[in-house]
Amino acid sequence: MISLQQAADILTNNDNYAILTHQYPDGDTLGSAFALCRILMEKGKRAKVLINGELPKKFEYLAENLPKDNFDIKTVISVDVADSKLLGELNKYKGNVLLAVDHHVAHKPFAKNIYVDSTAAATAEIIYQLGELLDSKFSAETADCIYTGLTTDTGCFRYNNTTARTHNIAAAMIEKGCRSGKINKEMFETVSRRRMALENYVLSNIQYYADGKIAVIYTTKEILDKYGVSEDELEGLSAIPRQIQGVMIGITLREKSDTAFKISLRTNEGIDAGKICSHFGGGGHKAAAGCAIDGTLEDVIEKISKEAQLAL
Amino acid sequence: MISLQQAADILTNNDNYAILTHQYPDGDTLGSAFALCRILMEKGKRAKVLINGELPKKFEYLAENLPKDNFDIKTVISVDVADSKLLGELNKYKGNVLLAVDHHVAHKPFAKNIYVDSTAAATAEIIYQLGELLDSKFSAETADCIYTGLTTDTGCFRYNNTTARTHNIAAAMIEKGCRSGKINKEMFETVSRRRMALENYVLSNIQYYADGKIAVIYTTKEILDKYGVSEDELEGLSAIPRQIQGVMIGITLREKSDTAFKISLRTNEGIDAGKICSHFGGGGHKAAAGCAIDGTLEDVIEKISKEAQLAL
Repeated sequence: MISLQQAADILTNNDNYAILTHQYPDGDTLGSAFALCRILMEKGKRAKVLINGELPKKFEYLAENLPKDNFDIKTVISVDVADSKLLGELNKYKGNVLLAVDHHVAHKPFAKNIYVDSTAAATAEIIYQLGELLDSKFSAETADCIYTGLTTDTGCFRYNNTTARTHNIAAAMIEKGCRSGKINKEMFETVSRRRMALENYVLSNIQYYADGKIAVIYTTKEILDKYGVSEDELEGLSAIPRQIQGVMIGITLREKSDTAFKISLRTNEGIDAGKICSHFGGGGHKAAAGCAIDGTLEDVIEKISKEAQLAL
Repeated sequence: MISLQQAADILTNNDNYAILTHQYPDGDTLGSAFALCRILMEKGKRAKVLINGELPKKFEYLAENLPKDNFDIKTVISVDVADSKLLGELNKYKGNVLLAVDHHVAHKPFAKNIYVDSTAAATAEIIYQLGELLDSKFSAETADCIYTGLTTDTGCFRYNNTTARTHNIAAAMIEKGCRSGKINKEMFETVSRRRMALENYVLSNIQYYADGKIAVIYTTKEILDKYGVSEDELEGLSAIPRQIQGVMIGITLREKSDTAFKISLRTNEGIDAGKICSHFGGGGHKAAAGCAIDGTLEDVIEKISKEAQLAL
């Protein structure tokens, strides 16, 4: 582990940067990468962001007005990548990462130099701090990128990971002209008709156990087909059951094949989701964990809800 | 209009405070009132908060550890009350309000002294500033109250009214020990089974017009009865239709009697909700407005959706 200043020095002393993001890119990995890219270019460096697949449409504004540059990569940096397994199609750079910047407490070292701050709500917080050490002016575009990382990784400043520092950086980015209202609307208040209809169907089939302390929802391939919804449009679904008053354990099943389900567990204070999932070879955090269970829908619901009841 | 310092001086130079809140109290009027009450008591003053009806259960934490004091009221202050009509059962104090502190741009003067700052996202921002002028230490309980006002009036820092100042004050309150994660969970992530089931039913009956640019949802007395949901549990429902991709005008109808509906309109950029509602004797802001229309459900949907189509 190096210091923040040492990480900033690496950025100052090198050039021709490729910035790696994790697969299934989210607002923090993309916001952090484009912010860092813009800060480096402001300092006269050459830099580009590498992504698994295309930049998702909803995140296109992060790359707005960013000139595309063609150059030989000399320095590889990863942002918000907790494990080299998550590099996906960027895996070929795995052995050449000079610096990994991350905020995941479970970061698995793969880079030559590592700067991990798990008290940061988002990797974008660290990119902001690096920008300060590099004397960045933080353009409005850079501010958009950093704000995007902050707001997406904290559920719009809602989750417990949000600190005073998160808010102070958000304030600074708003002062630099970031379009916070527009970004939040796009990130949190826009849902497709398909997704709305699917969510509605899924919630009308919610099952309660243990006097309403456990709530179970599920999606099958048939349901997804019926509503024309793809797997990656299911984001956020598993957060819903736990929001219902009285629910201690919210369980979401997603059919992977005819006889296999992927399970997401979310719990309220006191119940260890990771422990419940470990009975099925899975794991995770105390309040959010996952596992996979083989069986028919009915079988799998019975298995996981039984184990959940034992945890109450 | 007096200055912030003059408002602070009024608070310093008087005693035996009654702090008035508006009817159908929300997080900002209650958070502001309890914060001000705590700040005044910290300064050795006697103070109490007056509420229309009981303090709602979800806001009980605002009054935690606050000693009840019995004294003759000498000074009346109102917080977040935009119009004396909104005093409800506290209307008897109307002529005796020494100072009104508010952030509504449409504030209708009724107090002897007025301090209105419409750039404040919440009245709680102003209470924080007054606390600073009064050299408050901002206890963790006071911080809870101020944070509650900020987060509820900004949709958890999501809406366009959120400024750098809002975030800076949130940061300061977190540093003073406010329970931001717990408060946000209670305010935004807790929904009753009844409300969840009702929302589900309402959204399964959503109607689209004008190629999906208009979305209409409705509740009737029969539907509310069926799900055992009261009118005041419908908060936030009218925000949903506008969140659907492609929807420019979201319309929510609530049955008031067999032949009358109350209508909430929410629009996206460019469409003037207030103008549409003014055709039916209603009004409001550009992006959010309301009106009442007589007729059967079918009639009313036809009338309002026709007017909405003309506005596209």
